[in-house]
Amino acid sequence: MRTQVAIIGAGPAGLLLSQLLHRQGIDSVVLESRDRAYVERRQRAGMLEQNTTDVLRDTGVGGRLDREGLVHHGLELRFGGAGHRVPITDLTGRTVTIYAQTEIVKDLVERRLADGGDVRFEAEVLAVDPAAPSVTFRQDGTEHVLECDYIAGCDGFHGVSRPAVPDVRTFSREYPFAWLGILADVPPSTDELIYAHHERGFALHSLRSPKVSRLYLQVAPDEDLGAWSDARIWDELAARFATGDGWELREGPITDRAITPMRSFVAEPMRHDRLFLAGDAAHIVPPTGAKGLNLAVADVTVLAEALTERYASGSETLLDGYSERCLRRVWRAEHFSYWMTTLLHTDPGATPFEHRLQRSHLDYVVSSQAAMTSLAENYAGLPLK
Amino acid sequence: MRTQVAIIGAGPAGLLLSQLLHRQGIDSVVLESRDRAYVERRQRAGMLEQNTTDVLRDTGVGGRLDREGLVHHGLELRFGGAGHRVPITDLTGRTVTIYAQTEIVKDLVERRLADGGDVRFEAEVLAVDPAAPSVTFRQDGTEHVLECDYIAGCDGFHGVSRPAVPDVRTFSREYPFAWLGILADVPPSTDELIYAHHERGFALHSLRSPKVSRLYLQVAPDEDLGAWSDARIWDELAARFATGDGWELREGPITDRAITPMRSFVAEPMRHDRLFLAGDAAHIVPPTGAKGLNLAVADVTVLAEALTERYASGSETLLDGYSERCLRRVWRAEHFSYWMTTLLHTDPGATPFEHRLQRSHLDYVVSSQAAMTSLAENYAGLPLK
Repeated sequence: MRTQVAIIGAGPAGLLLSQLLHRQGIDSVVLESRDRAYVERRQRAGMLEQNTTDVLRDTGVGGRLDREGLVHHGLELRFGGAGHRVPITDLTGRTVTIYAQTEIVKDLVERRLADGGDVRFEAEVLAVDPAAPSVTFRQDGTEHVLECDYIAGCDGFHGVSRPAVPDVRTFSREYPFAWLGILADVPPSTDELIYAHHERGFALHSLRSPKVSRLYLQVAPDEDLGAWSDARIWDELAARFATGDGWELREGPITDRAITPMRSFVAEPMRHDRLFLAGDAAHIVPPTGAKGLNLAVADVTVLAEALTERYASGSETLLDGYSERCLRRVWRAEHFSYWMTTLLHTDPGATPFEHRLQRSHLDYVVSSQAAMTSLAENYAGLPLK
Repeated sequence: MRTQVAIIGAGPAGLLLSQLLHRQGIDSVVLESRDRAYVERRQRAGMLEQNTTDVLRDTGVGGRLDREGLVHHGLELRFGGAGHRVPITDLTGRTVTIYAQTEIVKDLVERRLADGGDVRFEAEVLAVDPAAPSVTFRQDGTEHVLECDYIAGCDGFHGVSRPAVPDVRTFSREYPFAWLGILADVPPSTDELIYAHHERGFALHSLRSPKVSRLYLQVAPDEDLGAWSDARIWDELAARFATGDGWELREGPITDRAITPMRSFVAEPMRHDRLFLAGDAAHIVPPTGAKGLNLAVADVTVLAEALTERYASGSETLLDGYSERCLRRVWRAEHFSYWMTTLLHTDPGATPFEHRLQRSHLDYVVSSQAAMTSLAENYAGLPLK
């Protein structure tokens, strides 16, 4: 078996890369260990930077996104019992769009298959050889070797690609909290996302559609999900979002619940020989800044451009610059995500001095045009250079 | 003995308050434990916000400041071997002025004495009674009781005023580094201040006059000053300021050297009964943001306004709001000073992840107009509301 680019992982990074390459006439095979239904059901992020929606549209998968995506022009920071709007579009000229990652995956799978793409589910990668280069995988009980020119490791944090980069240097940080996230069949109680800081902990009111709310609560990293009844979840959310002006949180049936750890992680470099890492395989951000999916899209956009140049002209200049170019954006997002996380969460280990600093910082962010613009430009996504 | 306002401490806060009150026809007595020569010799800060120069001019002590002060419109951040200018005036419409605190003290002492002010040196305060109210002090071997309407505690971090506030709540942070500061008889190697971040540690090139340079090196908190020969100081400074473009640090005779610890500290509230704390008696900032003197000036400006209202109309509204009003500005300055300190210093305990975040943060601050404006508006001083 042979292809030009072997892509490991059918998450948004792998699927989008395959589609971007297809449009440039470059062949690829996508290998995914899970089945299609599992991949299309995974609940992940849902906030898209304008860079991301631009790429999806340019790649021919913007149809349903344009019909169903909710375009937002601002967000709310809520603390001390009061809300403060950050007018993202007024400050940056950019918008963000609410459209779930799981929907993007469905759209990409459908598009790849309609275009005759080779996307193999339940194909477990056994070995990655960045030098040959080749990928060994098992499908239907049989081992295959996929020979290729390049390998894209888009198989997430726990995938097999990153361990195939020798001498990789990793950087990480664990946070003393996690997110308890729910999906609920209830119209959102807000038009725009609400990021709430409360002494009891952070809370986020997001949304999936006009009928489905997505809500999060800061909890302990070792929190027992079983200890959270529906009533306790709604009570805690109501307490953290409470304002002095009678705003009310609508409740409804909870259809999904999970606890997500918070972690920052970066692997350097993002390339070894013919193997290129992209997305969660190379870096993880805490979810506060909603940067994970957007970084993955940025990575594969850069990689597709570099591979396109390579096949068009033979030049490896862009491929050689891939890791450094991506890492600049990655570290910006890592810093912003860390900043947004520490700004809004209640650190159980913080000193009284640090609590006061945090409150002064929050007051400043919502009172200074410059500080608010800094938040907004990072949140909406700095231009993809 | 009786006066309207007893002022403890003849630093810039106490002296300026006395002068501000004098101009409103309010009597005060300033009690200072040290002698005049000592007070006028103390080397302290030298970067004045526009708010501060405005107040000094309005108070009639702006003459020499206007002749000798160096008005600056920007500063330089230097890291990774390159300099990046922050054009403060372009970004904020404000300027900063280099004029040493010790010169302000000389100007204020001279002005108070010329105006017949009662400034008593070598007058050691023994007891403060916020309720009576009165201040007991010893001068020339004799104890005196100064009765008054109000007491202003402007006697610094180690003074007797703060302990006279019962149930005071304190907030603090120690930093894992200190500053080794020198004065040198050599023309500054720069027109504007240079804040340098280097893996060996922070360095600051400031100045006192066209002929005198003021330079600082980050050192360990327990650093032995004796281990620093002149040659070692200059070599270390040169290494931390080094650029790729041949910039050179001029050397000259070192006339003063000292190690300053770095500390953040706030006492709340800043008032008890008839006693009002101002300046370092209530709060300390690490010197990185140059906020200490400016906060002291802001405190006594607010206090003078409140006392003026009280004597003019009998209303205590402004006096009652003194602590809260000052603390908002204090915490903003505390946050900025902490931010600027952690942005620029090399924390010996930082993880590799934190080092990478710091570099990404520095790159961002000098590449984003919003982030640079945020730094500039805090550095130049937010308007005194």
